[in-house]
Amino acid sequence: MGRWEPNARERLEQAALELYREHGFEQTTVKEIAKRAGLTERTFFRHFADKREVLFPHASPLQEALVGAVDESPQSAAPMDSISAALQAAGALLMERRELARQRQVVIAANAELRERELIKLATLAAELAQALRRRGVADPAASLAAEVGIAVFKTAFERWTSEDGEQGLSQLVRAAFDELKAVTAGK
Amino acid sequence: MGRWEPNARERLEQAALELYREHGFEQTTVKEIAKRAGLTERTFFRHFADKREVLFPHASPLQEALVGAVDESPQSAAPMDSISAALQAAGALLMERRELARQRQVVIAANAELRERELIKLATLAAELAQALRRRGVADPAASLAAEVGIAVFKTAFERWTSEDGEQGLSQLVRAAFDELKAVTAGK
Repeated sequence: MGRWEPNARERLEQAALELYREHGFEQTTVKEIAKRAGLTERTFFRHFADKREVLFPHASPLQEALVGAVDESPQSAAPMDSISAALQAAGALLMERRELARQRQVVIAANAELRERELIKLATLAAELAQALRRRGVADPAASLAAEVGIAVFKTAFERWTSEDGEQGLSQLVRAAFDELKAVTAGK
Repeated sequence: MGRWEPNARERLEQAALELYREHGFEQTTVKEIAKRAGLTERTFFRHFADKREVLFPHASPLQEALVGAVDESPQSAAPMDSISAALQAAGALLMERRELARQRQVVIAANAELRERELIKLATLAAELAQALRRRGVADPAASLAAEVGIAVFKTAFERWTSEDGEQGLSQLVRAAFDELKAVTAGK
């Protein structure tokens, strides 16, 4: 119990995703997750408040990275370019986690409550990105619009990344989706 | 009870929105809504399945109008232009309902469960618009992207329409938001 548990968080995450897929999110208990990971329930609760937090971490590194990237983008950058660069950087962060992200999407798609939670997370992210743009002096409606549209673009790239077997990384797919946005918006 | 009740649906809707704002959505009962509208509970249930359906009608005329407008837009129209035209048409439909829409937004903003429901409604609408584009031969990712981005644009225009006192109608604000999208996407 007090002993050192290498990669405990990752092992718990992997075990949880496996069980959520095998038996459903509702049916899985923390006890089962800990057992599958070869760890104790106490260790689980050192890393996660409950089984939902495995899917929706409270302090998301992705969210911090995103807002930080907008804050630090060059003052000369156009709003949509700040958002695009931030989302590409976030995509690079997730690069190594494609298989986990894919499993997570399967679990979320199978449960209405989790789908709602995911939509709320994305809406919150859009609101925070809009706020980051306002801190840079971008006025509304441009700030809200660039943030909401940016998240919509990211969502389509993310869905592609977790559903296709292509070679492209999330960062590249985000970039491609912003290029595609320029094309469809220009009426091509 | 069996007598003719002029504008019963509108009266119930207005009474419900008033009560949701005054006492909160959770605290309001169907009995109170019917009483405020000067109608019976039986009449309420002829129009709405429950008190949530006042805010989220099962068969939304807006949704039907939107999907219909995409289906019927000229085959030559670019995907984003089909979506933009459909959302402008939907905006025109809502024109007379600004005060109700405004009250509805206040009620929804005050309740987490209703905010979730609203996000789900918008996500469903985006999925249906993407499907309508696919029926016209638009491939993915362009179809998903144009639909998701279109809904994001509509959301910002709708928020502006219900929060500001300007003279512009929703249809005009949707058009302006799509123009703004072109500007921010082109990097202005």
